Amino acid sequence: MTASPAPSIPDTPFSIAVRVYWEDTDAGGVVYHARYLHFLERARSDWLRAAGVGQQTLREREGIVFVVHRMEIAFNAPARLDDLLTATVEPDERRSASFAVRQSLYREPESRPLVEARVRIACLDADRFRPRPIPDHLLREIAKT
Amino acid sequence: MTASPAPSIPDTPFSIAVRVYWEDTDAGGVVYHARYLHFLERARSDWLRAAGVGQQTLREREGIVFVVHRMEIAFNAPARLDDLLTATVEPDERRSASFAVRQSLYREPESRPLVEARVRIACLDADRFRPRPIPDHLLREIAKT
Amino acid sequence: MTASPAPSIPDTPFSIAVRVYWEDTDAGGVVYHARYLHFLERARSDWLRAAGVGQQTLREREGIVFVVHRMEIAFNAPARLDDLLTATVEPDERRSASFAVRQSLYREPESRPLVEARVRIACLDADRFRPRPIPDHLLREIAKT
Amino acid sequence: MTASPAPSIPDTPFSIAVRVYWEDTDAGGVVYHARYLHFLERARSDWLRAAGVGQQTLREREGIVFVVHRMEIAFNAPARLDDLLTATVEPDERRSASFAVRQSLYREPESRPLVEARVRIACLDADRFRPRPIPDHLLREIAKT
Repeated sequence: MTASPAPSIPDTPFSIAVRVYWEDTDAGGVVYHARYLHFLERARSDWLRAAGVGQQTLREREGIVFVVHRMEIAFNAPARLDDLLTATVEPDERRSASFAVRQSLYREPESRPLVEARVRIACLDADRFRPRPIPDHLLREIAKT
Repeated sequence: MTASPAPSIPDTPFSIAVRVYWEDTDAGGVVYHARYLHFLERARSDWLRAAGVGQQTLREREGIVFVVHRMEIAFNAPARLDDLLTATVEPDERRSASFAVRQSLYREPESRPLVEARVRIACLDADRFRPRPIPDHLLREIAKT
Repeated sequence: MTASPAPSIPDTPFSIAVRVYWEDTDAGGVVYHARYLHFLERARSDWLRAAGVGQQTLREREGIVFVVHRMEIAFNAPARLDDLLTATVEPDERRSASFAVRQSLYREPESRPLVEARVRIACLDADRFRPRPIPDHLLREIAKT
Repeated sequence: MTASPAPSIPDTPFSIAVRVYWEDTDAGGVVYHARYLHFLERARSDWLRAAGVGQQTLREREGIVFVVHRMEIAFNAPARLDDLLTATVEPDERRSASFAVRQSLYREPESRPLVEARVRIACLDADRFRPRPIPDHLLREIAKT
């Protein structure tokens, strides 16, 4: 998350490191399935932040929020306590008031993702939760061109 | 969850009530998206329990666990603090080592579900997380006939 | 949580039932320690609701929120998956802008609480998070007389 | 968490950075109180890891787990979405089968901690959850001398 000279979306997928803590696991000895959605959301938030989009600021200044609208997710293999994972984000498609990303969770050096997801994000009015067009300056940062 | 004379899956969808607490909400003022997966999982656990299937027992006596393998989920509209929701479970399809259910979250008297999901559950060996056939006695309870 | 004729705090502690689901457990095979705070908070929310105090309403109409200010908590023994617990709330002390409650988590028929806590709740301005006197009509409901 | 030449506890408190994500916030617009316990636990886990103590390994090889036994915690001021916090750990006291740490959460450059806690950790048998003496080699790493 260091300052970068050109805050545009790069060609290689954006990624962050995610450590698995006790809070993430369940009595099955592995990560609780819904926690992977947290990891994916952290990656999306950091990806937006790296593109200069602070979500708190977005809400206060422009009155919009990004929310998860749909998700298809495959849980291929479990992560465990102390694992160090990599969470990726790749823009996939955009519309006027929503965009989709592809995301994966890896445990290196394994090549097969533990989790794979396609996530559609809607741009909403922060107060009434009605669809709102994504502002142009955000579109340029967020979406694949 | 009282003992029922006929512990088979009924025609009307199984359902539980879910109250929304502070823990479930986020700074957007609505329920955090991943929390809906918790609500759905509670409904599946209670549905199994109502069919006489205790998951702790299942793990200790038969060495198997049920895990979420895939999920498609639509977040149609947000739930809010203090809402009282209804979470449903309907068996949808079964294979030898997995089954699928359809689930919804409602806020009555609204007829449109806030959340709709199709969830595929895999039956795994509790130690090595390899696929295991669902025992016959469970299949009879769990899966649509 | 049905309407009660006399919405005052009763002599016996207020209590709710709490089921332990997968989401609550960790890889140690027991409930993750921070989750007990969720259970305690659900009991406090339902206790306020039973006294006619809706927290969403409180925030919107009176511009105040109740927040946890201090907590002493003892984790005596672990709860496990599928356990059915009882969470209690007893008012303990009150000041102008805060009040304290004693809370326990039991697994019947065991007499020793699994978890015991003393929780101080502050009444704050919802926007700036500054102390605010608890409105009189709430004091009558909330605090021990 | 890079390899350090002398894996002993240093004089300045151990600390980690913690970013606040949507998952951590609630409808009050601030971090949900129980989430601070997660942040503190992450710091303790990383502190143990930095001292060469992997908790998964500890459980599998030595059959012991560390669990939170008691906690006193003060929530002085709220953290918010996108905040970058610092979580610290300082060993405070030790006994044969438990030890205590002091922990704080800061939002720099503010000098007053948002959260302060004293946490007693018990060493337990991983299967039966009975007290077990902390192994000597761990004591040397963990506890203040």
